[in-house]
Amino acid sequence: MGKLRIRHLLVAGGAGFLGSAFVRDRLRADPEILITVLDALRRPGAQADLADVLDDRRFKLVQGDVRDQAVVDPLAGTVDAIINFASEEFTGSGAADGPAFARTDIEGTAVLLEAARKFQHQRFLLVSSGEVYGPLKSAPNREEDRLTPRSLPASVRAAAETLAGAYHASYGVPVLITRAAGAYGPRQPVNQLVASLITRALSGMTVFVEGNGSATRDYLHVDDEVAGIARVLWKGEPGTAYNVGDGVQISGSQLADTILEACGKPSSLKRLTREGPGWSYAVDPRRMRPLGWDPLVRFPDGIRLTVDWYRRNESWWRLRDVA
Amino acid sequence: MGKLRIRHLLVAGGAGFLGSAFVRDRLRADPEILITVLDALRRPGAQADLADVLDDRRFKLVQGDVRDQAVVDPLAGTVDAIINFASEEFTGSGAADGPAFARTDIEGTAVLLEAARKFQHQRFLLVSSGEVYGPLKSAPNREEDRLTPRSLPASVRAAAETLAGAYHASYGVPVLITRAAGAYGPRQPVNQLVASLITRALSGMTVFVEGNGSATRDYLHVDDEVAGIARVLWKGEPGTAYNVGDGVQISGSQLADTILEACGKPSSLKRLTREGPGWSYAVDPRRMRPLGWDPLVRFPDGIRLTVDWYRRNESWWRLRDVA
Repeated sequence: MGKLRIRHLLVAGGAGFLGSAFVRDRLRADPEILITVLDALRRPGAQADLADVLDDRRFKLVQGDVRDQAVVDPLAGTVDAIINFASEEFTGSGAADGPAFARTDIEGTAVLLEAARKFQHQRFLLVSSGEVYGPLKSAPNREEDRLTPRSLPASVRAAAETLAGAYHASYGVPVLITRAAGAYGPRQPVNQLVASLITRALSGMTVFVEGNGSATRDYLHVDDEVAGIARVLWKGEPGTAYNVGDGVQISGSQLADTILEACGKPSSLKRLTREGPGWSYAVDPRRMRPLGWDPLVRFPDGIRLTVDWYRRNESWWRLRDVA
Repeated sequence: MGKLRIRHLLVAGGAGFLGSAFVRDRLRADPEILITVLDALRRPGAQADLADVLDDRRFKLVQGDVRDQAVVDPLAGTVDAIINFASEEFTGSGAADGPAFARTDIEGTAVLLEAARKFQHQRFLLVSSGEVYGPLKSAPNREEDRLTPRSLPASVRAAAETLAGAYHASYGVPVLITRAAGAYGPRQPVNQLVASLITRALSGMTVFVEGNGSATRDYLHVDDEVAGIARVLWKGEPGTAYNVGDGVQISGSQLADTILEACGKPSSLKRLTREGPGWSYAVDPRRMRPLGWDPLVRFPDGIRLTVDWYRRNESWWRLRDVA
């Protein structure tokens, strides 16, 4: 891994679905690593979800807001790199999401970038999303493509990327960006797509598919996704964005069918909403190959493994299902 | 002006250089207009600079932060449109600008967009900058060009544009964007480029030019710039960005020579710094033509008029020169 020497990592938003999976993966893979998680712990059960690593002496959990410089700076001063998973949760409820997104995702990123600059960190990785490219036009998006996000969460990610780009260009902060496919897997909150479909199917409820079910996107098992993100952190070229996906397009209809089958439920539970944008998304992940990363868990195996987890952990998601 | 009926405008950042010029222009041009300015009034002398319109019954000044929903919402509820000039001032001092920019420029824009959505405003105009395109590559930038900002202030503007685009695409907010050339003219704060050079020249001080003096950009007299912005507000197509410039490239060396000559000072006061990025910027303003706008004050006449103003108003800038 060259001259790069990241011993101590600050993981912002490290108690979330992706962030906590990343933390687990690193603690498992690297006996030397020290990890400090900064997380607002607003999601119900967030702290409990880290119970298995709380006793690890290499791990520290700090509750706080990424926008709070008084919290961030003392932590940033002791680490070699920052990785930012912190993001406002999209409720889609029509509530005032914009300002909240701007605060957590953009101002939060700015505070962390400023700390990375001040303490001359070795790396700064911003976890973004493949949705920043906007809906699929022809071929799966390459990293050089123009960002034309259509949704508010994707726009906020793109805006955070723009800020990170400025810190790289103007101040030489060694910024890396990952644009990942939709993640699924154990411990995904039940208000997120795949977990929502799985838990509805297991409960014998109708499984809704947006539009006519033909819109596709790529999905990635959370373990593969965080392994890809780690690969970018250690092997990526500063100033570069990386698509993290497996390059396979799955339609909404296929996803629902696969889930229902894995749950042993009849396909009659599937219902097309005939509403919603019906946008497809796809990223071309070929830039990841030279980094030596390739997904290990493929669709539909990953869905079956995930359904098994939700079946075995019903109390976990019943407790967290606030919808 | 079609079915558009903007009687009452909320002007965020309306006590700044551009914002206050816009307010003056509108009060002069439209006897029916009502204008409420929301401004944090952080710039020394900001309120005094609006003295000439404070007694106008069509005008109201509210001191407050654009991020404060409790201030914004009651104001937004009474107006037909918002125009956002509010921007953090770039000090370039190496201080923690990023988070402050994110707060004022991006979160502020999000709060105003949310209000525009809630109160179903007729228009939302975001005042952006031609610098969002990044340094000039070959031809002057068209509005369709990709945004590749290099500086922090330009990146923050681009990020605010991205958010505005999401509110247009997702929620149908009738968003307009202006990307303007560098403005100059009376009442420009002395820490901004042209005013800085003029006041230094008038004081007999060295006039510094970045790089080797060959980098160009387009300048616009503030009266023309705000007239162009008003034209976009009333005549522009929602969902569209407009370059506001006069399409003439002026080099840093030319600018300094013109200023020194207008000030009656020797060209020996000019000094090339041989440092700095030496980037050129240029926007192609042809989309403004169908809107019936064309600059009236051309370079170098505008510079001469501006030098006259600074000569006649020395106490104004001496009081405000905190550098």
